[in-house]
Amino acid sequence: MTDPRLYCQTALSPAAEIKLGRDESHYLVSVMRRKVGDKVRLFNAQDGEWEAELGAADRKGAILIVQTKLRAAQGVPDLDLLFAPVRKNRTDFIVEKATELGVRRIRPVLTRRTIADKVRIDRMSALAREASEQTERFDLPELFEARKLMAVLDGWPDDRLLIFCDEAGDALPMRDALKARVTDKAAILIGPEGGFTPEERELIRSLPSAIPVSLGPRILRADTAVAAALSLWQSQCGDWSGGAQPRE
Amino acid sequence: MTDPRLYCQTALSPAAEIKLGRDESHYLVSVMRRKVGDKVRLFNAQDGEWEAELGAADRKGAILIVQTKLRAAQGVPDLDLLFAPVRKNRTDFIVEKATELGVRRIRPVLTRRTIADKVRIDRMSALAREASEQTERFDLPELFEARKLMAVLDGWPDDRLLIFCDEAGDALPMRDALKARVTDKAAILIGPEGGFTPEERELIRSLPSAIPVSLGPRILRADTAVAAALSLWQSQCGDWSGGAQPRE
Repeated sequence: MTDPRLYCQTALSPAAEIKLGRDESHYLVSVMRRKVGDKVRLFNAQDGEWEAELGAADRKGAILIVQTKLRAAQGVPDLDLLFAPVRKNRTDFIVEKATELGVRRIRPVLTRRTIADKVRIDRMSALAREASEQTERFDLPELFEARKLMAVLDGWPDDRLLIFCDEAGDALPMRDALKARVTDKAAILIGPEGGFTPEERELIRSLPSAIPVSLGPRILRADTAVAAALSLWQSQCGDWSGGAQPRE
Repeated sequence: MTDPRLYCQTALSPAAEIKLGRDESHYLVSVMRRKVGDKVRLFNAQDGEWEAELGAADRKGAILIVQTKLRAAQGVPDLDLLFAPVRKNRTDFIVEKATELGVRRIRPVLTRRTIADKVRIDRMSALAREASEQTERFDLPELFEARKLMAVLDGWPDDRLLIFCDEAGDALPMRDALKARVTDKAAILIGPEGGFTPEERELIRSLPSAIPVSLGPRILRADTAVAAALSLWQSQCGDWSGGAQPRE
């Protein structure tokens, strides 16, 4: 069994003493049943991943002593996910999968046909943190409050490719569409279950940095489309092709 | 709003009367609140998709009158998913996503580190049917009872590529590995959360038709790996590249 892996905001250096908060202490001591002397991995985006030892197995304020560095931090590609919030469990799923699939920023957007009109940042944050711990990321994805799609598109930067999953149209398969538009800054936009309105589609397509793409002949649920599009992008343009990404 | 879409085992032809079962009648009449004269889409793998009209809005035995054919049936590529069952909600997710992502057969396999030792075929079947209705497939994926991995691999056919998602090793990125092994019959094998044992990995790798592949530098949960690997395969070898698949 591998050692538990916890995100730690505090700077990590040899012999640093890290006092955990109540939730993490409970998790480590009561749930994972770790005892004094047991090893834990701590990480953050600045300092990388370190081995630490449990110095006090207090259920409310466990203390970890940082020991040796295990790995230097690596970043994730400069990829944003823009998605229209859906029902709660599917939004949860989207946040979890986007984190595992190496998205740098998660930005909920409200479209005309979006069902849910707000997202709970605290809930997203807990899910993203847990997924980062699980998936061996070093950073947490940056989370944004929900904004109207129109406001997000207004002033969209020309140098960030906007990959727009368009099931209503004549879009090229995503793989072919990406071949023609190689860029290291990208965003993937997934609409709500009911799709975009014709006005929204027209506006998106009018942006110089937007490309419509197709994800095959079947209709995918929004959460499936998120996982599919992020996987294809990582495979073709991101860090699944072998090379690690430098941190900024 | 699009018309409800229901899978129908009975042959579909003009003026055929289809009496729905109790669950579907309830769904259509009580949940979707459809009335006599409303349209419904019916489909199956033999006859394609047809428009039908609600002739009797009975909550226990609604009757549909088949009218005109909307679309000819299309098959999905000859792709199997072999996965080690995980916790219930993640297994549910795997079945739903595999159906949306166009898998022809879903085969649970029991490995040394598999947590769940059985899967409920009736539950998988209901999920697969709902996902087929939703995703505009014509067929339902074929579902298999769980079998031991070793038994499944014993006698594995040489002409079916076994794409083995191997996070422990030196595997090529899936995209590169697939370039060298184009085939129209494939299976994707995803291990349990704890990975395969060294013996299992060695056995799988010894098969002439097996190729190990990598899904990037992060550790993916089993359900994420399923969605990622199926998407990459469909994009590169399956029916996301534009051409529809002939039915067999």
